[in-house]
Amino acid sequence: MTTPPFAPFAGVLPPVLTPFTADLEPDRAAFVAHCRRLLAEGADGLAVFGTTSEANSLSVDERMALLDALLEDGIDPALLMPGTGCCALPDSLRLTRHARDAGCGGVLMLPPFYYKGVGDDGLFAAIAEVAERVGGDRLRVYLYHIPPMAGVGFSPDLAGRLIDAYPGVVVGLKDSSGDWSNTRTLIESFPGFAVFSGSEVYLLDNLRAGGAGCITATGNVNLPAIREIYLRRESPQADSLQAEATALREIVQKRPMIPALKAIMAARLDSPGWARTRPPLAALGAAEVQALMDALAARGRARAA
Amino acid sequence: MTTPPFAPFAGVLPPVLTPFTADLEPDRAAFVAHCRRLLAEGADGLAVFGTTSEANSLSVDERMALLDALLEDGIDPALLMPGTGCCALPDSLRLTRHARDAGCGGVLMLPPFYYKGVGDDGLFAAIAEVAERVGGDRLRVYLYHIPPMAGVGFSPDLAGRLIDAYPGVVVGLKDSSGDWSNTRTLIESFPGFAVFSGSEVYLLDNLRAGGAGCITATGNVNLPAIREIYLRRESPQADSLQAEATALREIVQKRPMIPALKAIMAARLDSPGWARTRPPLAALGAAEVQALMDALAARGRARAA
Repeated sequence: MTTPPFAPFAGVLPPVLTPFTADLEPDRAAFVAHCRRLLAEGADGLAVFGTTSEANSLSVDERMALLDALLEDGIDPALLMPGTGCCALPDSLRLTRHARDAGCGGVLMLPPFYYKGVGDDGLFAAIAEVAERVGGDRLRVYLYHIPPMAGVGFSPDLAGRLIDAYPGVVVGLKDSSGDWSNTRTLIESFPGFAVFSGSEVYLLDNLRAGGAGCITATGNVNLPAIREIYLRRESPQADSLQAEATALREIVQKRPMIPALKAIMAARLDSPGWARTRPPLAALGAAEVQALMDALAARGRARAA
Repeated sequence: MTTPPFAPFAGVLPPVLTPFTADLEPDRAAFVAHCRRLLAEGADGLAVFGTTSEANSLSVDERMALLDALLEDGIDPALLMPGTGCCALPDSLRLTRHARDAGCGGVLMLPPFYYKGVGDDGLFAAIAEVAERVGGDRLRVYLYHIPPMAGVGFSPDLAGRLIDAYPGVVVGLKDSSGDWSNTRTLIESFPGFAVFSGSEVYLLDNLRAGGAGCITATGNVNLPAIREIYLRRESPQADSLQAEATALREIVQKRPMIPALKAIMAARLDSPGWARTRPPLAALGAAEVQALMDALAARGRARAA
């Protein structure tokens, strides 16, 4: 186990999919196995309980039990970056304390995402309350900027205020805005702040600008290829590796992303239950799954040719 | 206590503000007192744990404890319509079972509101899972349509599917879309379905079209005047009563609505702590409060003149 204080995360982290049983309960064994598989594939950390994990469809107790399952399986907590930002302050506090006490390398915090049109002061206060109340020298917060889902977010100005107020605690940000210019602004504005892109499409741009890497949904199914970009970012092959990974991403994201990734897992593991989602997400229909698998197979043939 | 099965709610229900202590804990005594005051003012029911209640800033346990506080105080549960719709199915199930077991007259259910762009099938499933798993003959669900906050919502088509699938269970809807034509479509499409407007601005229109009334934030501070519209809807004074209530609403909603309502409560009760909000909402500044109170006072003088 790494001794705190931790180095910031860097590289490629998958936001780990959460499999469900037929009763729509989290499938603990399948989840642990998936985390183990991703680490074996070289994941630089596991962003458990992110958007792709359907984390907001899990209760606080369910998230804590799944994190405990990973620890009981012997996974190094320093490799874990659980999502702990909730709408309700007491929920964020419970999850963040639990992660901090477990020795997690960091936490990824959504802003409270129900109320829209709130000002930066309110969002600052939401993070500040957690930083102040959880405290301690082992807390590492990564801000999660995903306005397409949350409807609110961490502007560069707000991120700067939080970095200034909580140095060594607010240490990074995942930018899922889909706006590369926003990511670049963050990287250039805050040297030493670990800025992750929310998609591997921007991975090479991110790394060349001095960013920390990416936390990307497709990392669940294409991790080795995405890590190759990271590992060989200074090689002559970097751009073609990026183009390959981007091409796969584009196939997957033509469908609802999370159900598509789960369908791929179900096919790979020959485990139909892996395709299950909790409402409001719906599994892909059979025809959609077939079209997805056909598109992936066609791409595989094109690469081999 | 009213014996189930309950008649549908009708009239004017405030979504009850939630006061907080200096530690930002729910102020149980002030909450119960506020509910008692609103019932004494003639509330036709209390929509506790709605948007105005900062319910999504409360944990599941906090909501359950506050509901228990009302029951322990002897408030008739048939008058209560707690909000129970959460992002996570287990949270919605816990809250809905608790409300149903307590004998609440109904529950108000947000759709799961984190994931955007989900289809009607996923939103249908979210409500269906609760209807099926909670079940029983005492469950009454009111759908909560508030796309400006939730980012997803219950279209008339989806509402119709849920009414057909769960007759006698899915019995009403609160329309906070701010789009009167949507409300009218719902009222005209589903006779016997209790459609509430989310603002008293549309109360008279709602009632004349055959709707059930309104569930309105301003009911926290202007309930008697709003109820006059409901009680005297067929009188010659109805339109002028509506105009009066609308004028007050327009003053309040020029500011962030929930902090403004709490500032009014703080002033009325001479209880500064009432102005507190949980992040991400921020209390109004002193100048904003003064401008609000001045505008309300000026309106009071104009009415008296």
